[in-house]
Amino acid sequence: MNFQHSPKALALQDLLLKFMEEEVYPVEKAFKEYMHSVDNPWATPPIMEDLKKKAKAVGLWNLFLPPHDADDENGLSNVDYAPLAEIMGRVPWAPLVFNCNAPDTGNMEVFVKYGTEAQKEKWLTPLLNGEIRSSFAMTEPDSACSDATNVACSIVRDGDEYVINGKKWFITGIMHEACKIMIVMGKTDPVNPNRHVQQSQILVPKDTPGVTIVRPLTTLGYLGAPLGEAEIHFNDVRVPVENILLGEGRGFEIAQGRLGPGRIHHCMRLIGCAQRALELMCARSESRSTFGKKLSEHQSVREDIAQSYCDIEQARLLTMMAADKIDREGAKEAKDLIAAIKIVTPAMTARVVDRAIQVHGAGGLTEDFFLAEAYNYARQIRFADGPDQVHMMQLGRSLARQYA
Amino acid sequence: MNFQHSPKALALQDLLLKFMEEEVYPVEKAFKEYMHSVDNPWATPPIMEDLKKKAKAVGLWNLFLPPHDADDENGLSNVDYAPLAEIMGRVPWAPLVFNCNAPDTGNMEVFVKYGTEAQKEKWLTPLLNGEIRSSFAMTEPDSACSDATNVACSIVRDGDEYVINGKKWFITGIMHEACKIMIVMGKTDPVNPNRHVQQSQILVPKDTPGVTIVRPLTTLGYLGAPLGEAEIHFNDVRVPVENILLGEGRGFEIAQGRLGPGRIHHCMRLIGCAQRALELMCARSESRSTFGKKLSEHQSVREDIAQSYCDIEQARLLTMMAADKIDREGAKEAKDLIAAIKIVTPAMTARVVDRAIQVHGAGGLTEDFFLAEAYNYARQIRFADGPDQVHMMQLGRSLARQYA
Amino acid sequence: MNFQHSPKALALQDLLLKFMEEEVYPVEKAFKEYMHSVDNPWATPPIMEDLKKKAKAVGLWNLFLPPHDADDENGLSNVDYAPLAEIMGRVPWAPLVFNCNAPDTGNMEVFVKYGTEAQKEKWLTPLLNGEIRSSFAMTEPDSACSDATNVACSIVRDGDEYVINGKKWFITGIMHEACKIMIVMGKTDPVNPNRHVQQSQILVPKDTPGVTIVRPLTTLGYLGAPLGEAEIHFNDVRVPVENILLGEGRGFEIAQGRLGPGRIHHCMRLIGCAQRALELMCARSESRSTFGKKLSEHQSVREDIAQSYCDIEQARLLTMMAADKIDREGAKEAKDLIAAIKIVTPAMTARVVDRAIQVHGAGGLTEDFFLAEAYNYARQIRFADGPDQVHMMQLGRSLARQYA
Amino acid sequence: MNFQHSPKALALQDLLLKFMEEEVYPVEKAFKEYMHSVDNPWATPPIMEDLKKKAKAVGLWNLFLPPHDADDENGLSNVDYAPLAEIMGRVPWAPLVFNCNAPDTGNMEVFVKYGTEAQKEKWLTPLLNGEIRSSFAMTEPDSACSDATNVACSIVRDGDEYVINGKKWFITGIMHEACKIMIVMGKTDPVNPNRHVQQSQILVPKDTPGVTIVRPLTTLGYLGAPLGEAEIHFNDVRVPVENILLGEGRGFEIAQGRLGPGRIHHCMRLIGCAQRALELMCARSESRSTFGKKLSEHQSVREDIAQSYCDIEQARLLTMMAADKIDREGAKEAKDLIAAIKIVTPAMTARVVDRAIQVHGAGGLTEDFFLAEAYNYARQIRFADGPDQVHMMQLGRSLARQYA
Repeated sequence: MNFQHSPKALALQDLLLKFMEEEVYPVEKAFKEYMHSVDNPWATPPIMEDLKKKAKAVGLWNLFLPPHDADDENGLSNVDYAPLAEIMGRVPWAPLVFNCNAPDTGNMEVFVKYGTEAQKEKWLTPLLNGEIRSSFAMTEPDSACSDATNVACSIVRDGDEYVINGKKWFITGIMHEACKIMIVMGKTDPVNPNRHVQQSQILVPKDTPGVTIVRPLTTLGYLGAPLGEAEIHFNDVRVPVENILLGEGRGFEIAQGRLGPGRIHHCMRLIGCAQRALELMCARSESRSTFGKKLSEHQSVREDIAQSYCDIEQARLLTMMAADKIDREGAKEAKDLIAAIKIVTPAMTARVVDRAIQVHGAGGLTEDFFLAEAYNYARQIRFADGPDQVHMMQLGRSLARQYA
Repeated sequence: MNFQHSPKALALQDLLLKFMEEEVYPVEKAFKEYMHSVDNPWATPPIMEDLKKKAKAVGLWNLFLPPHDADDENGLSNVDYAPLAEIMGRVPWAPLVFNCNAPDTGNMEVFVKYGTEAQKEKWLTPLLNGEIRSSFAMTEPDSACSDATNVACSIVRDGDEYVINGKKWFITGIMHEACKIMIVMGKTDPVNPNRHVQQSQILVPKDTPGVTIVRPLTTLGYLGAPLGEAEIHFNDVRVPVENILLGEGRGFEIAQGRLGPGRIHHCMRLIGCAQRALELMCARSESRSTFGKKLSEHQSVREDIAQSYCDIEQARLLTMMAADKIDREGAKEAKDLIAAIKIVTPAMTARVVDRAIQVHGAGGLTEDFFLAEAYNYARQIRFADGPDQVHMMQLGRSLARQYA
Repeated sequence: MNFQHSPKALALQDLLLKFMEEEVYPVEKAFKEYMHSVDNPWATPPIMEDLKKKAKAVGLWNLFLPPHDADDENGLSNVDYAPLAEIMGRVPWAPLVFNCNAPDTGNMEVFVKYGTEAQKEKWLTPLLNGEIRSSFAMTEPDSACSDATNVACSIVRDGDEYVINGKKWFITGIMHEACKIMIVMGKTDPVNPNRHVQQSQILVPKDTPGVTIVRPLTTLGYLGAPLGEAEIHFNDVRVPVENILLGEGRGFEIAQGRLGPGRIHHCMRLIGCAQRALELMCARSESRSTFGKKLSEHQSVREDIAQSYCDIEQARLLTMMAADKIDREGAKEAKDLIAAIKIVTPAMTARVVDRAIQVHGAGGLTEDFFLAEAYNYARQIRFADGPDQVHMMQLGRSLARQYA
Repeated sequence: MNFQHSPKALALQDLLLKFMEEEVYPVEKAFKEYMHSVDNPWATPPIMEDLKKKAKAVGLWNLFLPPHDADDENGLSNVDYAPLAEIMGRVPWAPLVFNCNAPDTGNMEVFVKYGTEAQKEKWLTPLLNGEIRSSFAMTEPDSACSDATNVACSIVRDGDEYVINGKKWFITGIMHEACKIMIVMGKTDPVNPNRHVQQSQILVPKDTPGVTIVRPLTTLGYLGAPLGEAEIHFNDVRVPVENILLGEGRGFEIAQGRLGPGRIHHCMRLIGCAQRALELMCARSESRSTFGKKLSEHQSVREDIAQSYCDIEQARLLTMMAADKIDREGAKEAKDLIAAIKIVTPAMTARVVDRAIQVHGAGGLTEDFFLAEAYNYARQIRFADGPDQVHMMQLGRSLARQYA
């Protein structure tokens, strides 16, 4: 066992930390004010475009991309990329600066693996360049999609086209004006007794007739712009047959493939949030006094700080171990660990951020600090890829069998 | 011991429940849409004015007012009023409909007890009529005011005037265009070794020169309009000497007087929130299915429901006991119980609402349900009158001495 | 609503408190030493017999007995008895002093309601006199009896006799040498499709041939003598047909009947434990110092004390409300509340006692304090009448339907 | 980063696992029965002596010993030893089989580092051979020794002797008849303003006149034999001056030196307990059914299993990282991590074991399973080297400063 990062990983961490300190933190307040003042929050903020150029220039771009073959020296392993995701996660909108935000990262991986040359040229290239954005449409408003058999969106072949009908919500990024393409999950074979082959994934350009952006959604009062969530309806939306990914009935298989690394990214970004909340909690507790002593001298504040450190360190190690297992044995072998980090990390982050809010007083709930937004982020991710309970169900079942 | 409400209380509960069902719930969605669509969220919404008229017409008005003497048959005891506050709390903005919202209720009680005839005529009468609104300015942005000795706002006598300087935030209701008057807490004698007589409370009309409304504040992304929170600065604000309440150095004493009943109101409104969240959680769990059974048939959902019921019932009883003790022995004798309900109820409500959100899936975080707003409300009240920790400090100290 | 005890209840509380202070606490240490030194822990300790005489002499005897009809002025309502059970619960073995211990109380109620005159004369009279003890045999080692359909013990009619075969454990009190009679739960009609009529209850004298006391059981290292738990096997045990209570198939009905008041007693005794632990925690925290201040001045200790007070007060009120509902509407109507107090109180007591142990340091785990034994008691009662989960299942299901 | 064990570590793990399966588990029940049946629980059980011989024969002996210099190929690093401690921890008395039990391991390390040749010959050699046992006397009954300045035991020089007076308790292993030597912590310079040099450590043979073994102590009803805890009084106990370790005033320094590796051992043994409890919980949940399905199919049981796995995996990783940091940078640099594992692991183990007990029903509290004893072990270790709160105080303070 060895808990040191590789020299390559350390060098990238240094570069990224420096970029955060020199370029990102200094404009954090300005970015927030811009977003509050602007008429159209779904446009690309100029600050963001500027930062993207700078990040690209120093090579902090598309770092999430895994090596495409054994000789690829550019691609990063999950273990090497994970701490970078953590650093980006310290500012909720920072992953976008480095073209490393969800769901674009997962979508790009899908294009790399399963896209035709034409699809790659049309969608992957501009995505890799950060010129356009993309969405992934899976969750539905009218049924609990944590059970995938509940997905109701239909994809029906009609000659050379597929016709799509259904409602989706929590479609991250679709409101962004640069978003041009969606990957939509739906059923091509809803009555197949094998529920793992009922579903397919299909490409739907945002401007296809029949696609209606019904409304943006807030979570805990937050719009989440410029990415954010939205509800979309599909009414007789027609796309050519070649838009199907990998083939009919392969939707579940594709979804599984993106899950592993995606969870590592989500969890590490959340750990970045939690780590920053801890640091803010420490700083605040040293700077304020009540009843004759610093907040940091009240035993219950010390316990909150200590407990938060313990929580964060443990979640980070667990996520790193999951990353390592994916790197060495693949996502399938790592499935228990991938479930475990999803169970642990969002709830842990919400808890740590909540403690940090408490130490900041009522101000901790306002926009004066990053904490309220971070809380919203963590609370929301407790639902991403299914609520905590679904992951506990799977992990619990798997373990019970294993030790029976 | 007896757990039945009085006939008078039951009759009012019936009337209020009927009003909620017939007048309030049906416009809840319209009210939310109005608030989202309107340019000035701080104006009085027409829906609200309409409801206020209807509430006044049926006698559901100013119910919070205690009996003014032993022969007063209109005023309600805390025990009789408490369940009404719970019912109002089922819709976050409903207390305003009945002129029973914080901080107007506490301010009106202060005017009743300590106001001069002129002050009553000018401020109390229109407040009782629901024509104007009022604020209470205590918390400050630059120090932790849960320790009252940290209050920095100065009130200095200069001839026939007092001159006020300082910064305040979390001033509920000041943004509302009908808000006309503030009660401001500050120090008239900051060096007095007896810290309980350093402070005074003084009336400051909102339009006094030197009063600057700096900005509204959000909590967890919520503006809280049409009441909401704000930051206010006082720069050489001058008011006549008769605006001081009760006399110099009596600020702490006045603050203590309003705390007891105010806590009962806060806690019962939160219990109304929690109770409604439980009911929504139950209904949702019966209407959705995953993995071949209703959510309500998953054991962990059942446990969440059962635990929430236990939590709510207990907090309600504790609050009722505190109300009863205030009624019989006064707020001073009830101080341990008043601390206890403040420790228990906001945290309990946040927990129950959070469970209800989890059962609703990601949609539970949106505006489609009342849950996100209710969570924000409960989370915020964990700071009202000081964070949980301060109340635990006082209660713990008091108990340790008592049993030593 | 009214939170005052009746004059009759208050007078009994005073009398009982005085007895505890003058007679019980002073011999607590001697009793523990006696139990540790004695060869046969299942004999009746002389200290106990002495205390029983004294208790009987002052009228603190069989207080648990409900009024046998509307004119009975001696029997106590559940509301009046509950606080007495709490006071007795402050010393784990004290209920025995007042002939108010489980399972004798429930057994005596069963005899009162369902016994024949001969059975009453033979068993109830000496039980009411405290001359013999009794047991209730329900739980089985080889299956989870929280689901009553899993009960495997068979009761088969053979002429004028019933023949009983099966294994039972957690048979409280059977080891005590004064224990003479068991009420045994088993199946007379195991294949009846109505699972509520499969079971019967039958009287089995301890000395009946075929009854084998296999071994006493410890819980967390405690023997629990002189009552304690044990495993019993029944091998072709024959009793006359008149030993069946109420008739074949009525076992479930009888069990339900004893549950309501029994839960009140269990919960109030536990609340007495918790209350005493809180008082000890307070006293200890005032008497020890670390790092320059009393333990009671460390904020986290204050929070533990405050939280424990809140927990206890709430559980007590909930239990009192359940008692009141049983008194006014019967156990059936009160079933949700009866489930709620079982969910809340044992877990709460374990939590409060655990906090008290923590404040006492490692010594808190030894026999120098009553805390370790109290922890064991609370932990064990989390399984009485089924584990927490079963009660949450029932309550959650009931509530989900109610609000659907 | 790398989460694989070294080949050397893996080989030892295999050997140890095989020994546990072939030699230890099969006699676990017999060992328990022997301990319950024997008159003198403090004698060395023959089963144990037999196992010790076998363990020594296969080289599973004194594995805890670190390399004594850079060329030592036998000694194990903390990272390599830690998983072995985990495996031994699966049976509470197993570490004794391999001469790897506390406090002998720490004491042997002290002798290795600070003992004179004569002391090594007299005490270290038979300790390494497993012929005698030893104790460490630090905690006192009359004051809270988690604050080391509260230690009252005095060590006063008188000519060629030191005279020791004081009371100690929680002296692990002193009751064992093979225990011959104690290391006693006391004050040689109680008024020194530098509190880190007030204390010394001194060797006291158990048979020295003035040493009184007052009584064994139970924790949660457990005697803990053949090791166990006890209270010892020192009345004018005289030992030669050369018995002082390292010199007067060096007590604190020696104590610090043993803390790091000792914590790794404690925590890994507890993780072994927790892991075994998880496995038992899984097996039980597959083998029992209620309400028509296996326990493992009830969602709340699945969640308990999943959560326990997450808890254990995280604590193990945190402990391994602490071990690695001690190996690479020394215990001083690792102090925050060493505090963190002490905060996390005992509480985690108690929680996991408690969940496992719940799945086992009331039987989980008896001696039929290893769970009750494991709970007692974990609960007790929450006090070892100071209660959780002290470690949180230190860690919280350290972090607050670091991020201020």
